[in-house]
Amino acid sequence: MNTSPIKTAEILCVGTELLLGDIVNTNAAYLSRKLAELGICVYRHTAVGDNPERLSRALDAAFSEADLVITSGGLGPTYDDLTKETVAAYFGRSLFLHESSLVAIRSYFDRIGRVMTKNNEKQAMMPEGAIVFPNHYGTAPSLAIEGENNKTAIMLPGPPGELIPLFEEEILPYLQSRRDSVLVSKNIHIFGMGESSVENELKELMTESKNPTVAPYCKEGEVRLRVTASADTRAHAAALCDKMIETVRKTKVGEFIYGIDVDSLEEAAVRHLRSKGMTLATAESCTGGLCAKRVTDLAGCSDVFLGGCVTYANEAKTELLGVKKETLETYGAVSEETAREMARGVRLRLGASVGTATTGIAGPGGGTPEKPVGTVYVAISTEKGEVVRKLSLSAMRSREYIRIVSANHVYDLILKET
Amino acid sequence: MNTSPIKTAEILCVGTELLLGDIVNTNAAYLSRKLAELGICVYRHTAVGDNPERLSRALDAAFSEADLVITSGGLGPTYDDLTKETVAAYFGRSLFLHESSLVAIRSYFDRIGRVMTKNNEKQAMMPEGAIVFPNHYGTAPSLAIEGENNKTAIMLPGPPGELIPLFEEEILPYLQSRRDSVLVSKNIHIFGMGESSVENELKELMTESKNPTVAPYCKEGEVRLRVTASADTRAHAAALCDKMIETVRKTKVGEFIYGIDVDSLEEAAVRHLRSKGMTLATAESCTGGLCAKRVTDLAGCSDVFLGGCVTYANEAKTELLGVKKETLETYGAVSEETAREMARGVRLRLGASVGTATTGIAGPGGGTPEKPVGTVYVAISTEKGEVVRKLSLSAMRSREYIRIVSANHVYDLILKET
Repeated sequence: MNTSPIKTAEILCVGTELLLGDIVNTNAAYLSRKLAELGICVYRHTAVGDNPERLSRALDAAFSEADLVITSGGLGPTYDDLTKETVAAYFGRSLFLHESSLVAIRSYFDRIGRVMTKNNEKQAMMPEGAIVFPNHYGTAPSLAIEGENNKTAIMLPGPPGELIPLFEEEILPYLQSRRDSVLVSKNIHIFGMGESSVENELKELMTESKNPTVAPYCKEGEVRLRVTASADTRAHAAALCDKMIETVRKTKVGEFIYGIDVDSLEEAAVRHLRSKGMTLATAESCTGGLCAKRVTDLAGCSDVFLGGCVTYANEAKTELLGVKKETLETYGAVSEETAREMARGVRLRLGASVGTATTGIAGPGGGTPEKPVGTVYVAISTEKGEVVRKLSLSAMRSREYIRIVSANHVYDLILKET
Repeated sequence: MNTSPIKTAEILCVGTELLLGDIVNTNAAYLSRKLAELGICVYRHTAVGDNPERLSRALDAAFSEADLVITSGGLGPTYDDLTKETVAAYFGRSLFLHESSLVAIRSYFDRIGRVMTKNNEKQAMMPEGAIVFPNHYGTAPSLAIEGENNKTAIMLPGPPGELIPLFEEEILPYLQSRRDSVLVSKNIHIFGMGESSVENELKELMTESKNPTVAPYCKEGEVRLRVTASADTRAHAAALCDKMIETVRKTKVGEFIYGIDVDSLEEAAVRHLRSKGMTLATAESCTGGLCAKRVTDLAGCSDVFLGGCVTYANEAKTELLGVKKETLETYGAVSEETAREMARGVRLRLGASVGTATTGIAGPGGGTPEKPVGTVYVAISTEKGEVVRKLSLSAMRSREYIRIVSANHVYDLILKET
């Protein structure tokens, strides 16, 4: 058993569909984030097609620098799935039929009610001495080979629906068992302050603090700071992180922090409402269902979220939300007044504690000199009354961006006004 | 001027944020898709950090196989942005101040109303002999170097909001000017038949046809086939594709084809309704806004889409859609009867030609032996009446997958039943 610590890694993704641009390589980002959290430095990402010669060269190049190579893809049942065979050849291992994997694959097919074909047997062939991690989410087991040369390869199937749970349940514990110090990361979530302002405010912390490190990263309209500390115990590393978080809270950035280690603004908003025993109803025009969709992405949101109305046509705003015709005629659908009536309307209609609304011009068409693309009104209604925020996002932003940021403001209003 | 044709390429992305997993490398997928459309074969994707030695080694490795290397990232104003300097060194070119780029950067700052800092001048430094492509979307110009060794490098800024328009407006025409044959791709979109069944049915075509080639790729619950032909003229290549598409239509796959070169099922559904002068209203329980969100992702959908109701709570189903209390009590919220009343209710309520509904158990909680996770009823209502489809998706699928596939069935019902 190879127990030397792993310090450096390369992520090597296999699949012609990547090189054709048919799919975006989310696996590389996911694995990188996970390895960074483990304190393993990722040197490079490489993606190659289903071509064993190129894969073999990429493997040589990867191991010339990295202790660990994690592959994704190429573990399927077809003739062009050759990752396992190629990696086994690199380590000089031959393949044999791994009985318990065969049993697992058979039972997987039984469970999903389909017939196992002969070529799926290929997925049960394993290199000598490999550590096999059973896959409950698909047919390709994951595996690791620990080489005599102090190099380790971990192979994962390509579909994120298999790769992610396999990584969380099997690979993470395996990698943790091979570390020599403990690393803890905490994420500070910030909304309402731009990345450059955050960086400007925290420049010294970000460049000078080595343990914990503080690193910013951006997500549509939000900024996050990752605080990472290394120590002898988990508790000690966590304490170092907490101390740094307190330091950041005392800066100008502090008032824009909406959570530590929350998944998203919508999750923070739903948690906040739950903690207050409040319920939510959403009214949406320009976001067209996105506000509700992001809330219902969260499993178990039904104790907080009652429902919502997507009122694209003016008639829908009147019929479903009771927005007055004269309001629409006098001020227009994209106006503070309409936003206010939408938020109040949906709250009263569904008997919720909180109603929210969005109405605006997401583009690319539909802008006017008075109300250019990017003009959005975001409103919240509670029994205390309504609050409306006017956004003037750059018309150069995409429709998608404008919709995401508008929804972000809905969740931020929930956090600030309830 | 180097005018030899470009046949092979590598995409080389630069940025430590990629290796930390802070951002997903969407640029590599975008550029790959564009290069595939141009008939340029992408051999490999590589991502390295802001580290000139590693970048230099990656560049050597890339050019050892590829005619063209496209880089993204590392053109910023700060000291660690070193792509241009490193690529210039590879080609043995020195940098000089490119006056018109400096003027353009100054005017960009004027336009966005910010002060240009001294370090932005670095972005106007260009390698000798470079072709400079002005950037109207940011401060970093794009550039190409055509080496004496028949190798070409194209450098693009990292943010997709700059990279994509720069590629479309400047790089695409440049690359088209360097091609020798014409390549046309068409995509066949299939819904309702699994990937393995499609492959099984078309195995011979996919393995034996060389021009056009036929290659499958998967997208949540859908299958797509890309047909790609090469010829002396665009018309000839397109005709080769069309002939192959007709061949595929005559197989068992034919009846599951919902479109050629459409962006998505929802786009096909909206186009279909538009062509018939019909309007749409959506009712959603388990999809929680996703059906409406995907429709309103499409700019200009407002001639078809009137609005929708997200009715998560039972009271919302009654209040907004008029679902009868006794229906909910007798059959439950997840039932054929409720789905039918939801679809009819939203259609009548919003005066639409078509109403759709989803109600089901997206999980991970909430399943029962009678109605396990993955049980979803999808309904459509028109003036002809209602049609309901029962889905029994695997409970092992993610909440996200169950919601996406449920919405897919809504759009498929629109295509099939109107």
